[in-house]
Amino acid sequence: MIVTFTDFGVTGPYLGQVRLALAREAPGVPVVDLLADAPAFNPRASAYVLAPLAASLPQGTVCLAVVDPGVGTQERRPVIVEADGRYFVGPDNGLFHVLAKRASMRERWEVLWHPPRLSVTFHGRDLFAPVAARLARGEWPEARRLGWAGEDFDGWPDELTEVIYLDPYGNVMTGLRAASLVANGRLSLCGRIFERARTFGDVPPGHALWYENSLGLAEIAVNRGSAAQLLGLAVGTPVTV
Amino acid sequence: MIVTFTDFGVTGPYLGQVRLALAREAPGVPVVDLLADAPAFNPRASAYVLAPLAASLPQGTVCLAVVDPGVGTQERRPVIVEADGRYFVGPDNGLFHVLAKRASMRERWEVLWHPPRLSVTFHGRDLFAPVAARLARGEWPEARRLGWAGEDFDGWPDELTEVIYLDPYGNVMTGLRAASLVANGRLSLCGRIFERARTFGDVPPGHALWYENSLGLAEIAVNRGSAAQLLGLAVGTPVTV
Amino acid sequence: MIVTFTDFGVTGPYLGQVRLALAREAPGVPVVDLLADAPAFNPRASAYVLAPLAASLPQGTVCLAVVDPGVGTQERRPVIVEADGRYFVGPDNGLFHVLAKRASMRERWEVLWHPPRLSVTFHGRDLFAPVAARLARGEWPEARRLGWAGEDFDGWPDELTEVIYLDPYGNVMTGLRAASLVANGRLSLCGRIFERARTFGDVPPGHALWYENSLGLAEIAVNRGSAAQLLGLAVGTPVTV
Repeated sequence: MIVTFTDFGVTGPYLGQVRLALAREAPGVPVVDLLADAPAFNPRASAYVLAPLAASLPQGTVCLAVVDPGVGTQERRPVIVEADGRYFVGPDNGLFHVLAKRASMRERWEVLWHPPRLSVTFHGRDLFAPVAARLARGEWPEARRLGWAGEDFDGWPDELTEVIYLDPYGNVMTGLRAASLVANGRLSLCGRIFERARTFGDVPPGHALWYENSLGLAEIAVNRGSAAQLLGLAVGTPVTV
Repeated sequence: MIVTFTDFGVTGPYLGQVRLALAREAPGVPVVDLLADAPAFNPRASAYVLAPLAASLPQGTVCLAVVDPGVGTQERRPVIVEADGRYFVGPDNGLFHVLAKRASMRERWEVLWHPPRLSVTFHGRDLFAPVAARLARGEWPEARRLGWAGEDFDGWPDELTEVIYLDPYGNVMTGLRAASLVANGRLSLCGRIFERARTFGDVPPGHALWYENSLGLAEIAVNRGSAAQLLGLAVGTPVTV
Repeated sequence: MIVTFTDFGVTGPYLGQVRLALAREAPGVPVVDLLADAPAFNPRASAYVLAPLAASLPQGTVCLAVVDPGVGTQERRPVIVEADGRYFVGPDNGLFHVLAKRASMRERWEVLWHPPRLSVTFHGRDLFAPVAARLARGEWPEARRLGWAGEDFDGWPDELTEVIYLDPYGNVMTGLRAASLVANGRLSLCGRIFERARTFGDVPPGHALWYENSLGLAEIAVNRGSAAQLLGLAVGTPVTV
């Protein structure tokens, strides 16, 4: 199975061309679009969104993950990351650092294989999709082992005390694990304080709450409303416990 | 075949995680995303959108349908509904009442099976998707027969004299069946009167009309424009014949 | 393989019903959604977007392409177009003229087959999807050879000196092939002049550039920003070389 995680958007010609490349190069392999609106141009916030999703992927899954504002520059290498039996293909710009840090088994290779035609701005289609297809077919492209060093994870805390994602309902996902917070603790953003609840319906419509979301993270929501809109929150807004 | 009908949105991590759960638990079963922007938080309007779509599903299809503002509360039970040879899995909050009422054969079971891990806010992924996958694989999860009683349908008229859905073009779907309206009848919304036409091109660009949409319902549109935007219509706006 | 190219949007009930029709009528055939936000109501701009995408389709692919503001009128015929070994199904309203003009082998047939039930406004589901499914199954529906004449392409220049598409990042695609422009040439839109760069990262964040996009077309972008929003560009805006 190949799973896609990108900031390409569900509209636009990007995800479709990636799907086409995968269908052409890995015929018969199921492709699941997991997320197409990862925090745009933001590999750091995306890394904290990808990590808990990655943990739910079946063993052997190949995840094509592309949030790549530096596409076409020499700044970042294309890599394959293995973490606890799952494979990740994409740019080495931090996107895989959180999931690798959390894994008990991790590996990393620089992709040396070159596609016959490589556009400057769309490595997702031209490079990462063919590499993911090869892995899903059981082939291994030319690559050089990089491994991971402890200092690679400097600057990548276990939890991010920031807003990392806004979902289409306007729910506000933070990089904090709910389990690491006091059971009845409060969260504070932009000078407002939020009480913990179990689910939306535990507060009246229009009221705000925070709760443990389905990825285990602390999330702020407004019952039947948009917390992002109501509170003016954005990816990167700091959170105080 | 498994068909999804949700208010999860096409962006966001929800539909992707449901797809992943289905791919994992029902490998090889085709999954078709039918609608991801059912009227949000609105099982009643959604029920009138789902019913005509449901009638077009092939026999034996399993439809995972989730519009579930009460997720995680005790208010609603998880159910399997059978209607004329199709199976529906989701919350028992009215979403299946219209299609069940219209069916010549209907049945209903409360799902008693519990997943190993159930988040509070995402039963679509944790409960309904695994149940749909089991049905698609030909297995039957632990369940208790509820059946349907005539009084279950009190308050669920055959047609809803309201706006039930806005499509991405801004066309305005009502809960009225076009076939039950006078051939050259008019519709009235918000004090404006709409004449019937056969198709968009029958009126000049920028002009409004109503017509029988492809689901057999009366729909208001503006040729090459957005009726929703132009007229300020929303789900729930009353319609007068 | 069946590939969809439409202006149906990714939200709304249209693409889902087309997917359902294809799954029902061509079971086991992979379906790839390539683009769902082709320029709305605009077969001309869409034709210039479709042509370079079409060139990347594998031989034998069936492309269901629907941008059809004249649906339900007698103005346009349903057609099958063959171009260099790929098959296109949709309305004969210009949508296939650019790719046919560029093909070394082209053919065209009017579809005479009628579905058992044809709605007035949704030929994508009722007519074009079943025809595409038949082609993908290796069957040929009742059809009449039309062919192509040289004068069919009058008014269809090789390149369009206009904006043809806005992507979800706000990048602005033009109908000009980058290869036909001077290596360090400038583009001018709305009185503003754009310098050529290789990729986004070659200019500072917030700065505009033009570059050869992954389809080979000249495209205007703002590094980590939205050119469409910043510059107020829309489909149809003229471009000066």
